[in-house]
Amino acid sequence: MIYFDSDYMVGAHPEVLERLVETNGLHTVGYGRDEFTAEAKRVVLDACGIADGEVYFLEGGTQTNAVVIDRLLDHNDGVVAVDTAHINVHEAGAIESTGHKIITLPNRDGKLDAKALDSYIDGFYRDETNHYMVRPGMVYISYPTELGTVYSRQELADIGDVCRRWNIPLYVDGARLAYGLCADGAEVGLKDLAGMCDVFYIGGTKCGALFGEAVVTRHRDLLPRFVSLIKLHGATLAKGRLLGVQFTALFSNGLYERIGAHAVRLAMKLKAGFTEKGYRLYIDSPTNQQFFVLPNEKIDELKKVASFELWGPRGETETPVRFVTDWATTDADVDTLTAAL
Amino acid sequence: MIYFDSDYMVGAHPEVLERLVETNGLHTVGYGRDEFTAEAKRVVLDACGIADGEVYFLEGGTQTNAVVIDRLLDHNDGVVAVDTAHINVHEAGAIESTGHKIITLPNRDGKLDAKALDSYIDGFYRDETNHYMVRPGMVYISYPTELGTVYSRQELADIGDVCRRWNIPLYVDGARLAYGLCADGAEVGLKDLAGMCDVFYIGGTKCGALFGEAVVTRHRDLLPRFVSLIKLHGATLAKGRLLGVQFTALFSNGLYERIGAHAVRLAMKLKAGFTEKGYRLYIDSPTNQQFFVLPNEKIDELKKVASFELWGPRGETETPVRFVTDWATTDADVDTLTAAL
Amino acid sequence: MIYFDSDYMVGAHPEVLERLVETNGLHTVGYGRDEFTAEAKRVVLDACGIADGEVYFLEGGTQTNAVVIDRLLDHNDGVVAVDTAHINVHEAGAIESTGHKIITLPNRDGKLDAKALDSYIDGFYRDETNHYMVRPGMVYISYPTELGTVYSRQELADIGDVCRRWNIPLYVDGARLAYGLCADGAEVGLKDLAGMCDVFYIGGTKCGALFGEAVVTRHRDLLPRFVSLIKLHGATLAKGRLLGVQFTALFSNGLYERIGAHAVRLAMKLKAGFTEKGYRLYIDSPTNQQFFVLPNEKIDELKKVASFELWGPRGETETPVRFVTDWATTDADVDTLTAAL
Amino acid sequence: MIYFDSDYMVGAHPEVLERLVETNGLHTVGYGRDEFTAEAKRVVLDACGIADGEVYFLEGGTQTNAVVIDRLLDHNDGVVAVDTAHINVHEAGAIESTGHKIITLPNRDGKLDAKALDSYIDGFYRDETNHYMVRPGMVYISYPTELGTVYSRQELADIGDVCRRWNIPLYVDGARLAYGLCADGAEVGLKDLAGMCDVFYIGGTKCGALFGEAVVTRHRDLLPRFVSLIKLHGATLAKGRLLGVQFTALFSNGLYERIGAHAVRLAMKLKAGFTEKGYRLYIDSPTNQQFFVLPNEKIDELKKVASFELWGPRGETETPVRFVTDWATTDADVDTLTAAL
Repeated sequence: MIYFDSDYMVGAHPEVLERLVETNGLHTVGYGRDEFTAEAKRVVLDACGIADGEVYFLEGGTQTNAVVIDRLLDHNDGVVAVDTAHINVHEAGAIESTGHKIITLPNRDGKLDAKALDSYIDGFYRDETNHYMVRPGMVYISYPTELGTVYSRQELADIGDVCRRWNIPLYVDGARLAYGLCADGAEVGLKDLAGMCDVFYIGGTKCGALFGEAVVTRHRDLLPRFVSLIKLHGATLAKGRLLGVQFTALFSNGLYERIGAHAVRLAMKLKAGFTEKGYRLYIDSPTNQQFFVLPNEKIDELKKVASFELWGPRGETETPVRFVTDWATTDADVDTLTAAL
Repeated sequence: MIYFDSDYMVGAHPEVLERLVETNGLHTVGYGRDEFTAEAKRVVLDACGIADGEVYFLEGGTQTNAVVIDRLLDHNDGVVAVDTAHINVHEAGAIESTGHKIITLPNRDGKLDAKALDSYIDGFYRDETNHYMVRPGMVYISYPTELGTVYSRQELADIGDVCRRWNIPLYVDGARLAYGLCADGAEVGLKDLAGMCDVFYIGGTKCGALFGEAVVTRHRDLLPRFVSLIKLHGATLAKGRLLGVQFTALFSNGLYERIGAHAVRLAMKLKAGFTEKGYRLYIDSPTNQQFFVLPNEKIDELKKVASFELWGPRGETETPVRFVTDWATTDADVDTLTAAL
Repeated sequence: MIYFDSDYMVGAHPEVLERLVETNGLHTVGYGRDEFTAEAKRVVLDACGIADGEVYFLEGGTQTNAVVIDRLLDHNDGVVAVDTAHINVHEAGAIESTGHKIITLPNRDGKLDAKALDSYIDGFYRDETNHYMVRPGMVYISYPTELGTVYSRQELADIGDVCRRWNIPLYVDGARLAYGLCADGAEVGLKDLAGMCDVFYIGGTKCGALFGEAVVTRHRDLLPRFVSLIKLHGATLAKGRLLGVQFTALFSNGLYERIGAHAVRLAMKLKAGFTEKGYRLYIDSPTNQQFFVLPNEKIDELKKVASFELWGPRGETETPVRFVTDWATTDADVDTLTAAL
Repeated sequence: MIYFDSDYMVGAHPEVLERLVETNGLHTVGYGRDEFTAEAKRVVLDACGIADGEVYFLEGGTQTNAVVIDRLLDHNDGVVAVDTAHINVHEAGAIESTGHKIITLPNRDGKLDAKALDSYIDGFYRDETNHYMVRPGMVYISYPTELGTVYSRQELADIGDVCRRWNIPLYVDGARLAYGLCADGAEVGLKDLAGMCDVFYIGGTKCGALFGEAVVTRHRDLLPRFVSLIKLHGATLAKGRLLGVQFTALFSNGLYERIGAHAVRLAMKLKAGFTEKGYRLYIDSPTNQQFFVLPNEKIDELKKVASFELWGPRGETETPVRFVTDWATTDADVDTLTAAL
């Protein structure tokens, strides 16, 4: 069996694991107040080109989104996102459980449109009854998106402009950031991203770590008392240095980019394999997630050799499916898959 | 100035006020454990044709929706409603503040479509990842809808069937129930409604009371420990008998229906006045709310003689507007308005 | 039967009711944006000696406490209160339902001790692990307290000093404020109170209104976007002017003080009647609530002529009980009660 | 420097780490639906002597407490715990953030007293106003307690009896369960515990794992839809098998007990070292946490050779302190420490 279900199906990249093993027996204080964590913060800020910002390490993506959004919003604020956003679909209501509405706008290839965003907020403020409506208090996008697509530099800049116009923060979910930064034709580097949004997180779990996400902001005061809020959400790791150790590894020797580039290269190869055989793209993704619409019989057949996910409920005759690559995917895996088409 | 902003712009109907004045000096125990409240419960259940159910009195609509929905949903459940639903637009995020998502489906003239509902829930259960999605845990509709429209008997029955198929409760927001029951061409009576949904509330605030809503259910055990939950939501009235006194008045001598019929008659007259003058309906409503699309200059002109609301943000050249009638609206009010068109 | 259960057992004081009746047929805009409400705000601020503050009207006490506290606290803050506080005992968990801990300190005759408060907060800040503890974010007291007692001017000033020292707001629950201001030997007037705390509410429900509480603050910006938060909590009255009308009445012609003085005079008479007959005070209250410890047989006997509450669970041989007076209590009521002792 | 701050200052026990390394490169499905997790559930249930129950793996203790308690309580229920409970003091308000009150009773050496518990609940139900009070909906204890003490078999049985009498679940926080099971003089084994409470968790983080806790219940239906609730709380690990792998290691070859026994032996040695030198116990703990009251000068002196925590704010002349042992503590560490006394 070869695995394309997602990018969290193996353990850590060997270079990450090695550092965990090397440091396993050392004593440090807990809860991220140790030197490994401090070092990782420096390394991450440096990679982001931020001279004076903050980094916080959390364990997983849903948790990270909930804590950040809970911090950025006032009581009756909502977070604006596209309808396909991970927070809107696949986090079991985690955002709403913190008391906040997700205000959804239609996606365009998984992306938020700056004009539609501006128009929505403008309409809100021109509505006489808006004090009884949920105020758009921040914007959530992911990079890459839930559908594997990436924003162009201009698209990102436009969204940032709208946010500044209305004085609300822009937050970027980077669960799969490595693959976005290394996307086929990507225009946005890590430092670009860090400068264009207010808060973002660098995904570790899906990008080579055992687990872990790094929340980054260039505004020192944007997330007040965040350490306490992380604890309140049950998102504080007792052996916090495990996160620091992993992120230092990911941002040493270009590992994070190597992971991204490897997975994207194989994803492009996989896409070519499918399209050459005449299969239809569900969406054209330049990153490590590839979506096709396959006949149900073909799905059943492929399931014998490969593990992968249906994208939504099974259709009557055909169904969208997703194939995902990561650091552990090999050329041989892709070859085997496409040979089975 | 004549007033068409909404149906909460005057005090109570004189027959309701009279009862409040008559009983003002009497002593009763508090918090709705008094005889007036007990009497009102009997009167309401009788009007609903329910032999063995429960009635709870609350103070206002947003509060009522929040308490009922909070009670009916399990932790990661959401409430299914149309995008135009009051809970989704004009309650400042009250439902989300209890931790629950509003799952929105597109409205059709303000109404929920039974087939679209069934299809959504079916898709949810056929999605392999649904344990990380928000489960559709109940259905919310309003009668009449936010746009003044009413469901036919068949439409309501179909929604009820879908709910039973998926074993989730159907809740009806009856903030303006009097006008729905007396709608032009209405097919659904109070007893029909009571039998076709699991919980509903009979609006008092917008239908002749000073304030107050009556939550009704024919399932004794559907709202366990509801008295405590009402208190937790800060929705318990110390002088609870005030609600009982008002609802007994509303359901004595056919008052509730008289109020509904009066307002609807004047709304139909108002609609005729506008359409005869060539103005366009925003939607064709058979109840006490009437919606037109008016040129902005006409709006500015009318605002000199009448008070009414824009329905959404002001457009560039024309804007939807709403005119609402109630027990205190007179034929002369409508005549004055239509004369000014 | 004569009634001493509480101060919410009759309707409104006749002078309040009269204004409601007089204004019943008038049209105003809803949700408290009307002239009656504006007038009431002016009248209340004037009575409080506040030149530039804010007033908000809500419907009931539990609701008011929840909304104010939810607004004043940051995410992992708690509210400091005595163990006997209404919010800690008799509000069904309303405060916790907004996500906040009530940090309790032992009461002294129902009162919070400034030194104990200071010591607690000091200890918190000296604890190395306090970033994982609930931060004391505000102080809640009631005036009079849950046990009917009142703070001296010095006691209040001391608590205010502690709050300023630690830079947290002091909030006073004035559900029964009329009786506190008119307490036997009271040192604190309305203007004193308004100047000594940051936010407080003036109780209407238990002090002569049908229902309603007025939140007052002398800091214009302390409760940002409070109108939206009130709505989110379901605490917005559609016919908002009903609150304005009532509070204008309560603060016209000295009515609020007349109500307080009347009830306190009768409470003192009642206390004298009990103590003369040799019954033991549970606590010595100078306000309209009187607490005694009575033998269970005496309780059973008295219940035949008077309605009143046990204060906590029934003891084996004797039980604390409470008798409450209000504007509607008469000398004859008290005479009948004491004659039955 | 030698480390006694806590039991989360090194990585995983070598036998645990080894299994993580061995399995690192294998592919499995995510989110705990893999074979490693399934195996761990079987191993854990077997160790607990539960034929037909459920096991769920989470990442950390605060999170686990919040999710379990949120699941077990109805809306206006509270959880009964001692005042010193971890959930009440050191979880930053995580429980309250889910909307629930912690009802505290005074601790006796960190323990809950069955009689006090029964008396509290009995008083609650005998209070006429209890429908407006927070209902005691479950009981939380920890084993060992926050102060390192353990319940006798009889004490545990008595608490269980009270819970059954009032029909509420008993939940045991086993963050340091290994040390409780191996406590000096312990009477309660893992199977005993599993049979005497309704839900408990077996601590991994503080007992030899990198991180992770195993929630165990012998009632299949007590935690409905728990997988979704875990996700909603952001507590789902994408690479869920990491938890399975670790717990299988912990419960293979008697590792969990070996870890507990080792740490407790050294803790007893450490206690003897302190008491022989005449230092006063803060409390007499039979587990891996040892508490002493030390003069401040001695604390300052010891801090030069050893890392450990103050237990609460620093006193004027002396302060309680805590020393904790774990699998990585050596005889030499303890010898060095006691030599420095």
